[in-house]
Amino acid sequence: MVKIGIVGGTGYTGVELLRLLADHPGAAVEVITSRSYAGTPVAEVFPSLRGNFDIRFTKPDVNSYQNCDLVFFATPNRVAMDQAESLLARGIKVIDLAADFRIQDIPTWEAWYGESHACPSLVQQAVYGLPELNRDAIKTASLVANPGCYPTSVILALLPLLRYELIDPSSIIADCKSGVSGAGRNANIANTYCESSESVKAYAVPGHRHLPEIKQILQSINKNAELVFTPHLMPMIRGMHATVYADAIDTDTEIQQVFETFYRDEPFVDVMPEGSHPETRSVRGANQCRIAVHYLDANKKYVILAVIDNLVKGAAGQAIQNMNLMFDLDETTGLSAPGMMP
Amino acid sequence: MVKIGIVGGTGYTGVELLRLLADHPGAAVEVITSRSYAGTPVAEVFPSLRGNFDIRFTKPDVNSYQNCDLVFFATPNRVAMDQAESLLARGIKVIDLAADFRIQDIPTWEAWYGESHACPSLVQQAVYGLPELNRDAIKTASLVANPGCYPTSVILALLPLLRYELIDPSSIIADCKSGVSGAGRNANIANTYCESSESVKAYAVPGHRHLPEIKQILQSINKNAELVFTPHLMPMIRGMHATVYADAIDTDTEIQQVFETFYRDEPFVDVMPEGSHPETRSVRGANQCRIAVHYLDANKKYVILAVIDNLVKGAAGQAIQNMNLMFDLDETTGLSAPGMMP
Amino acid sequence: MVKIGIVGGTGYTGVELLRLLADHPGAAVEVITSRSYAGTPVAEVFPSLRGNFDIRFTKPDVNSYQNCDLVFFATPNRVAMDQAESLLARGIKVIDLAADFRIQDIPTWEAWYGESHACPSLVQQAVYGLPELNRDAIKTASLVANPGCYPTSVILALLPLLRYELIDPSSIIADCKSGVSGAGRNANIANTYCESSESVKAYAVPGHRHLPEIKQILQSINKNAELVFTPHLMPMIRGMHATVYADAIDTDTEIQQVFETFYRDEPFVDVMPEGSHPETRSVRGANQCRIAVHYLDANKKYVILAVIDNLVKGAAGQAIQNMNLMFDLDETTGLSAPGMMP
Amino acid sequence: MVKIGIVGGTGYTGVELLRLLADHPGAAVEVITSRSYAGTPVAEVFPSLRGNFDIRFTKPDVNSYQNCDLVFFATPNRVAMDQAESLLARGIKVIDLAADFRIQDIPTWEAWYGESHACPSLVQQAVYGLPELNRDAIKTASLVANPGCYPTSVILALLPLLRYELIDPSSIIADCKSGVSGAGRNANIANTYCESSESVKAYAVPGHRHLPEIKQILQSINKNAELVFTPHLMPMIRGMHATVYADAIDTDTEIQQVFETFYRDEPFVDVMPEGSHPETRSVRGANQCRIAVHYLDANKKYVILAVIDNLVKGAAGQAIQNMNLMFDLDETTGLSAPGMMP
Repeated sequence: MVKIGIVGGTGYTGVELLRLLADHPGAAVEVITSRSYAGTPVAEVFPSLRGNFDIRFTKPDVNSYQNCDLVFFATPNRVAMDQAESLLARGIKVIDLAADFRIQDIPTWEAWYGESHACPSLVQQAVYGLPELNRDAIKTASLVANPGCYPTSVILALLPLLRYELIDPSSIIADCKSGVSGAGRNANIANTYCESSESVKAYAVPGHRHLPEIKQILQSINKNAELVFTPHLMPMIRGMHATVYADAIDTDTEIQQVFETFYRDEPFVDVMPEGSHPETRSVRGANQCRIAVHYLDANKKYVILAVIDNLVKGAAGQAIQNMNLMFDLDETTGLSAPGMMP
Repeated sequence: MVKIGIVGGTGYTGVELLRLLADHPGAAVEVITSRSYAGTPVAEVFPSLRGNFDIRFTKPDVNSYQNCDLVFFATPNRVAMDQAESLLARGIKVIDLAADFRIQDIPTWEAWYGESHACPSLVQQAVYGLPELNRDAIKTASLVANPGCYPTSVILALLPLLRYELIDPSSIIADCKSGVSGAGRNANIANTYCESSESVKAYAVPGHRHLPEIKQILQSINKNAELVFTPHLMPMIRGMHATVYADAIDTDTEIQQVFETFYRDEPFVDVMPEGSHPETRSVRGANQCRIAVHYLDANKKYVILAVIDNLVKGAAGQAIQNMNLMFDLDETTGLSAPGMMP
Repeated sequence: MVKIGIVGGTGYTGVELLRLLADHPGAAVEVITSRSYAGTPVAEVFPSLRGNFDIRFTKPDVNSYQNCDLVFFATPNRVAMDQAESLLARGIKVIDLAADFRIQDIPTWEAWYGESHACPSLVQQAVYGLPELNRDAIKTASLVANPGCYPTSVILALLPLLRYELIDPSSIIADCKSGVSGAGRNANIANTYCESSESVKAYAVPGHRHLPEIKQILQSINKNAELVFTPHLMPMIRGMHATVYADAIDTDTEIQQVFETFYRDEPFVDVMPEGSHPETRSVRGANQCRIAVHYLDANKKYVILAVIDNLVKGAAGQAIQNMNLMFDLDETTGLSAPGMMP
Repeated sequence: MVKIGIVGGTGYTGVELLRLLADHPGAAVEVITSRSYAGTPVAEVFPSLRGNFDIRFTKPDVNSYQNCDLVFFATPNRVAMDQAESLLARGIKVIDLAADFRIQDIPTWEAWYGESHACPSLVQQAVYGLPELNRDAIKTASLVANPGCYPTSVILALLPLLRYELIDPSSIIADCKSGVSGAGRNANIANTYCESSESVKAYAVPGHRHLPEIKQILQSINKNAELVFTPHLMPMIRGMHATVYADAIDTDTEIQQVFETFYRDEPFVDVMPEGSHPETRSVRGANQCRIAVHYLDANKKYVILAVIDNLVKGAAGQAIQNMNLMFDLDETTGLSAPGMMP
């Protein structure tokens, strides 16, 4: 039984970890911390968990985790980099659901996140936790940087195309649509129901923090990869839809077969039948990425459609998938429930 | 392993049964029928089930179910009453999620459902499948009439008050709010996104089919029970909120304690702390009914707030709870997952 | 041309005043103030107004309004009571869209709003701005207390019944459903899309500030009037649905005709045909209250359904209706646009 | 006063025409037809119009329109082409809100719409009713083909770039997001609340009927223009967001200024300040197109964001704008109301 600590359990990735771990047969939440809610029962903050969790939030304190095998950081960026080192020193493994260890190049990280990195030495040892890319490294990792939601969907859409050099790597456009929960559990006017319902907008067109993260991974496969990345906010709670465009190099590739073969053994990437248009609701609450690939002969372009639940395969579910790998559990343990539809 | 047949698996109660049974350790879906989709894989109609169910819809045929221990009718009203008898004759148990066996008084049923009942003899042997009311009878039943969603929420809100004679039984008003999925998976203008989003309305104020169902149960406890029942349509997929009003007989009852004691051992009724206002999202996807009870001293009235997911505790989840009881499984098997929030 | 000042124009009632006044032929907005946005163009905060309003927010200052004929307070409670006196002293009329002048009994106000009233002397001279109740007084008023949204819908549903003594005045229950915009343009977790979408809840069951406001008006008609008032939050931006229950005194009243006659000459109260169920979307954006009345013979109860747009007939539209009356314009000026559907 | 007939007034473009015409000072609806609702008052089908329209639907009959100056076809595709000729012969002008006269090349139309065109001779004389492109021709036209919603947003986003030859015309990608009302007022499962809420999907990736319409216009400006067009369905009633990508030819164009200058005199195209991200809600209910243009230096690409209300600037509002032009009214008559926000 993996003993788990969760730092910062009052955001959406935190409560989603709890939801997914509630019935996990191989892991138990021992400690969950929150500065502002210390002393309060978890189920008081999240009544959906009444009857599933009896524990209370405790003050964040590095000693709290001493009985843990693994600590998840479900915190804002910049918390994990202060605490990961002392946990690792005690032999406790760490999965950071924020961005502190995702970017290998420290100056790039510092430019996008606007401050100095507190722990650059650990960045190199961190493994980017996308199992479809780094499964073996994750299995032996002590520190996993859990990918962002946009990067998960965009990278999975592009992996086969880049690996097999089927596209012009400089031609990539990722037009992405995210539910509001991607913005976290924060009180601000823009996130209110009245301001985000019944409306759609693009944001951060000049540059979003997930751009360097995506580029880093794409360029690790093909150093000439470049992309335009445009995030949009959708009036829905959960769900992410990546629509990815790229110029085909060769016009007679059996692209459907390429994707099906590439992802054949992946438990959490589902290549849909030819001609499909996956809906985000088909993965609501599920640790799945559903992908459809289209080739437009008139334009010599691929259009790849990839959907995930941003809080599951895009965050907490993927983190548990990584945990399963790190602790030699079956990779799908606790993650096989289908999406909730309708 | 209980072998299960599902009749009419293309509506919301059907797909919800599948979702909840996907990981049920004590039951397996053997057969699922649909006249219009016969031959089509279940996962093609419901892509959320890709990877969880490999079976195809088959034509409805009484012989299809011969290897089944239990058949769920997830059909429109009036289907089960034609087929239940022959299934029962073969020793196959039946749970009807529609209304054919809910009303004991045949003329009442015929008046509200507008045709003659095909199978009145079975009605008497049918057990009304509300475990909190009829647990023992359900355990030995062959034919269970699964309650409607509105009745489930209203009856659970009233049970302790009626049992302990704490209210004037003629004073009950149930103002109920339902998500759109309560109307089923039907194509009609009123159910479209454009016509039901961003709007609220009452409907069937002069009389709704769930009214005689609720009255029958309430009057079985106190023959003087009468109620006004007003259903409303909410712009949300799932969820039901019953706001129930009744005149208090006695003004110094410890009502919070009455509810807590009454439901202490119920795994799926959760009495919230005093002063609470349960939200439907706290039970989204979960087989739970959360209840809060308020006493208004100025008006000598109780206001009871009860929330369920209309597709789970109000339909498919309760049906599985009944199945667990009928087959001597732990009542909570497969039903312990927390609600999905956000 | 009525010259208008708006205090606190950055909330929803403020922007709704601007929307409705944009094409008003008899009024022009001269000044609009906001402490936090002083200097910023109105159309920068509300891009929907680009091209309709060129003015900027200015600092609130009593001298700003010197050229105004009328000042609307679209502020939180407790602002108008500090400033109204000096405006009135300069001959500027005032309509307060908040609650400072709604409650005639000062101790009641102070009990519900939690502080001393800054200006009790003005309260008596304030006219409660419900034209269907107080049209003549509004025409000559200098200070109008614009009603709350819940009170508007509940009072209009009850007026004919109370006036003609058709109900037991102590039996009233008002079960009300409001869109999220009723909570104002505030950043807090409960108002976010993720926390208020796809969910319904009751709130303030033990007592809401609109309760004494409603009671005051009902009791001014029948001093024995009492009510239970239960507000609920709906997952929609705009719209309010009051479902009002009351015991009939007489069982053979022609209730449909009573309502139609009572409201025959009202431009903004629309009695729907017998048997109707009005939808909130039918008044989205419109200064209308649509009412349907049902009589349940089995229960000897009336069920009245009333819908408004909480920001229009429940706030800014009604304020403009009051302005029209106060300045001898046709009451419907600028308010005749139909609702937006879908 | 322009006398108006509306054919097929029970869809969303029909009811939106009625909403916008309710207060139009220069036009009056004389006749509105509907086969299925003949005899029924308009306000019974659309209660939002109670008090604004007293007329009833009549049977479609070419003689009904004899007193009309103008007939709008708010019908499904393929109705107008059967009836336009006889109306024009009587001197009645026609605006078709469907697609019958949008495509100049008959074989292309027939390929995409799947049948022979009933009236090819009229196609040539039809003017494509995008005022920003064809204002002068519209003024003298008898037959106007009102543009589709997608084409309106995409073409307005691209006009300055194509006119001034600022982009590689073969590099265009239009990733478009539409509210559900774009699919019309049709009862089908995919349009229901439960199936389209809380979800996003692409559709018609291999080819959508608006593709040849957009291409025709773009190629009339630059014959080498090609595009990828990907429509997506959003969980909202109204609104359309076009995100358009194109390769810049020159890297030092003052693109913001180009757009501002190009659209300076357009009453219904609003170029937002540099760096903006327009929201669809800013044009909800309004006849506006708001555009922001971004240049990504790293990719040498323009990203143009354009939002409209698909039912207003994308349909009924634009039709009225065309009517105003055809009848020598001020182009903005009846169209100046700001969007409804929130």
